[in-house]
Amino acid sequence: MTAVETVPREELEKLQLARLRETVGHALKTPFYSRRLGGIGISRPEDIESLEDLKKIPYTSKDDLRSAFPYGMLSIPLDDVVRLHASSGTTGTPTVIYHNQHDLDAWTALSARSILCTGAQRRDVFQNMMTYGLFTGGLGLHYGAEAAGLLVIPASSGNTKRQFKLMKDFGTTVVHATPSYMLHLASRMEAEGIRLEDLALKKALVGAEPHSEDIRRKIEELFSIDVYNSYGLSEMNGPGVAFECVFKQGMHVWEDNYIMEIIDRESLDQVEDGEYGELVLTTLCRQATPLLRYRTRDITAVYPDKCPCGRTHRRIQRFTGRTDDMLIINGVNVFPSQIEEVIMAMPEIGTNYQIVVQKMGALDKLIVKTEVGKNIFTDDTRDLKALSSRIAENLKVSISINPTVELHEPGFLPVAEGKAVRVLDQRPRM
Amino acid sequence: MTAVETVPREELEKLQLARLRETVGHALKTPFYSRRLGGIGISRPEDIESLEDLKKIPYTSKDDLRSAFPYGMLSIPLDDVVRLHASSGTTGTPTVIYHNQHDLDAWTALSARSILCTGAQRRDVFQNMMTYGLFTGGLGLHYGAEAAGLLVIPASSGNTKRQFKLMKDFGTTVVHATPSYMLHLASRMEAEGIRLEDLALKKALVGAEPHSEDIRRKIEELFSIDVYNSYGLSEMNGPGVAFECVFKQGMHVWEDNYIMEIIDRESLDQVEDGEYGELVLTTLCRQATPLLRYRTRDITAVYPDKCPCGRTHRRIQRFTGRTDDMLIINGVNVFPSQIEEVIMAMPEIGTNYQIVVQKMGALDKLIVKTEVGKNIFTDDTRDLKALSSRIAENLKVSISINPTVELHEPGFLPVAEGKAVRVLDQRPRM
Repeated sequence: MTAVETVPREELEKLQLARLRETVGHALKTPFYSRRLGGIGISRPEDIESLEDLKKIPYTSKDDLRSAFPYGMLSIPLDDVVRLHASSGTTGTPTVIYHNQHDLDAWTALSARSILCTGAQRRDVFQNMMTYGLFTGGLGLHYGAEAAGLLVIPASSGNTKRQFKLMKDFGTTVVHATPSYMLHLASRMEAEGIRLEDLALKKALVGAEPHSEDIRRKIEELFSIDVYNSYGLSEMNGPGVAFECVFKQGMHVWEDNYIMEIIDRESLDQVEDGEYGELVLTTLCRQATPLLRYRTRDITAVYPDKCPCGRTHRRIQRFTGRTDDMLIINGVNVFPSQIEEVIMAMPEIGTNYQIVVQKMGALDKLIVKTEVGKNIFTDDTRDLKALSSRIAENLKVSISINPTVELHEPGFLPVAEGKAVRVLDQRPRM
Repeated sequence: MTAVETVPREELEKLQLARLRETVGHALKTPFYSRRLGGIGISRPEDIESLEDLKKIPYTSKDDLRSAFPYGMLSIPLDDVVRLHASSGTTGTPTVIYHNQHDLDAWTALSARSILCTGAQRRDVFQNMMTYGLFTGGLGLHYGAEAAGLLVIPASSGNTKRQFKLMKDFGTTVVHATPSYMLHLASRMEAEGIRLEDLALKKALVGAEPHSEDIRRKIEELFSIDVYNSYGLSEMNGPGVAFECVFKQGMHVWEDNYIMEIIDRESLDQVEDGEYGELVLTTLCRQATPLLRYRTRDITAVYPDKCPCGRTHRRIQRFTGRTDDMLIINGVNVFPSQIEEVIMAMPEIGTNYQIVVQKMGALDKLIVKTEVGKNIFTDDTRDLKALSSRIAENLKVSISINPTVELHEPGFLPVAEGKAVRVLDQRPRM
């Protein structure tokens, strides 16, 4: 564990203030922030006198990032940039984050710290099943795992057969994947002739998709391993923003690199510790593209108590979803994760599901499709009917909406090799 | 240019000897080489007294690498390994190369040197279109380009529409791709609404596939850029073994990192400078997986004269093909590259082609499929017939075989997003 992970809060806050000043210094060199900070009387780093002063600065949104494209948020000469990650769309204005060598080194250190925080060690064999390329999930932890001295197998995503072969050939002990890909791997084991005893797997680091505690437990049971939750977003580098330690009770936000705030999405005021709100982050160790009070659109809450691991960096709850993901169905706010939670708590139901929203006249219709074990498809359809009623009732309790539940045989629903597409909103756009 | 690139040959050879001794020292720690070197009386690094002593050591083959799987050629504790690259097959024994941090740093330095050697500079925007992951083409030059200070866009392969968008959005000046993907990009430009003026492209670094000088010229003309040839193979790290300088007359083999020999494939004796033979390489800067006299199966020749760039590292000819690629058609040795050369020299013919070999009774039949411009497909088929005869004649002259030539409309043949599959040998295996 690095010393900064257990530093007393008071010292941590001193470090944050010093780094916030540096960051404001970098931000003032960008067209976007020099204008925005100038408007509120901040023109020098020293104008930030305390961490409280951060609250004077307006939030930065994804739209701000887009409007500043391509160079409005770049604080250094383009010659000094050594990497960029851009959103992958083929149309529209992308968002882009630039890095100089310092930024990459800082990101690598955070990724390494995150991996080691789960108890992984130099001698572990780390198979990275996240996509390598512009998506930050692959390269992000790749650099960190190498720096932490693990043996990295840069498998990238997809090709399940090869993933299993690599795991067997090289005795993979730690994998990095999306939770849905882990479930997919589990569903393919039998068909690929893989038994748990063939694998040396001990840990999975999962991220890039919100998922429930039940999904974690399901993956842990299916592989007899420990599963650790990872959080990051490309605007904040990528993976390595927050990570679970061996206690698996929330993710430590690396507060020497990020100032965290949780705000009410309506009033935009800070919420109390323990209350849910939108996570807002300020970069503290980034020179090329500093971001001040960036609205992540991710909903979480701070754990009010201390973690037994001894780290002083505060923990956040797993994400119930992004504000982007939120569905409004007949006026009711529904997060897909709420539906997942209900489904995954029912042992009769498999690992794959899909949420479809359609327009039926003036009303919205929610259809939840799941797979169930083959043995339940008998001539007597009473069991099936009883099961779908039970699922519908449980969902009604959780989300206050009565869905149509469709049960399917295993293998019916599409499987994702990368990030799963769980939600199909088929309502016409207004 | 780093000092070692222009060091006098005498000093270079001293350096090679010192590093060869170190390498033999590492090799002696592996089960495979301790046995093999022991058999010829080499048990200590000092047993290598001169570069000539290298010739006492037997060649290492790809089969040796396979037979030593998984750890027979590993010279360091597994804990010290930070990366592996393995052949990607899902069946059979893979080949695997392990790297410690030292090895990765040396590879990165070679990749950086290779990129700078083409005249690329810190201020260049480098879009890496090679696949990221276990394939060494992507990560290899990625690390080098970052170290050289270029702005790296880790685009990875595929998604032509997005590649063009990135090129436009960020003013890409240098790309890294297979030659066939460059031709594919050119063929898609019009359909994607891209004009040359929209791009800031200056250079393409191409590798991973043997290709002819005519293909280079074609790509250079299509994009109005300079194209540089890159050579590497995963057993020798990956890209960065040999690279063209701005004079584009053969690829400098980085002889401070590799000892190069060219041998006759029958007698296994060294050939004279300028004569074609199989390239044999010995690693000089690799600790985890040293390889001594590795038979690359690639056919080339050394340029006998000095390069005007001032580098003292010798240059090799572009590859006419691998010994693996060689087709034996009715007893005649044919390299696909010979066919490509003929096709690409004929302006009526497009950028895509395919070579099919079939069994017709006892005889082999060679079919060459190419695409031609749309305007040639008129009601009058005489032009088509005349063109296919001309192609067949030219091929006959070059390869001593009379092929069947098929002409197709543009878009008929499959396009490769990665490494092109140009040859379909459909004869039954014996």
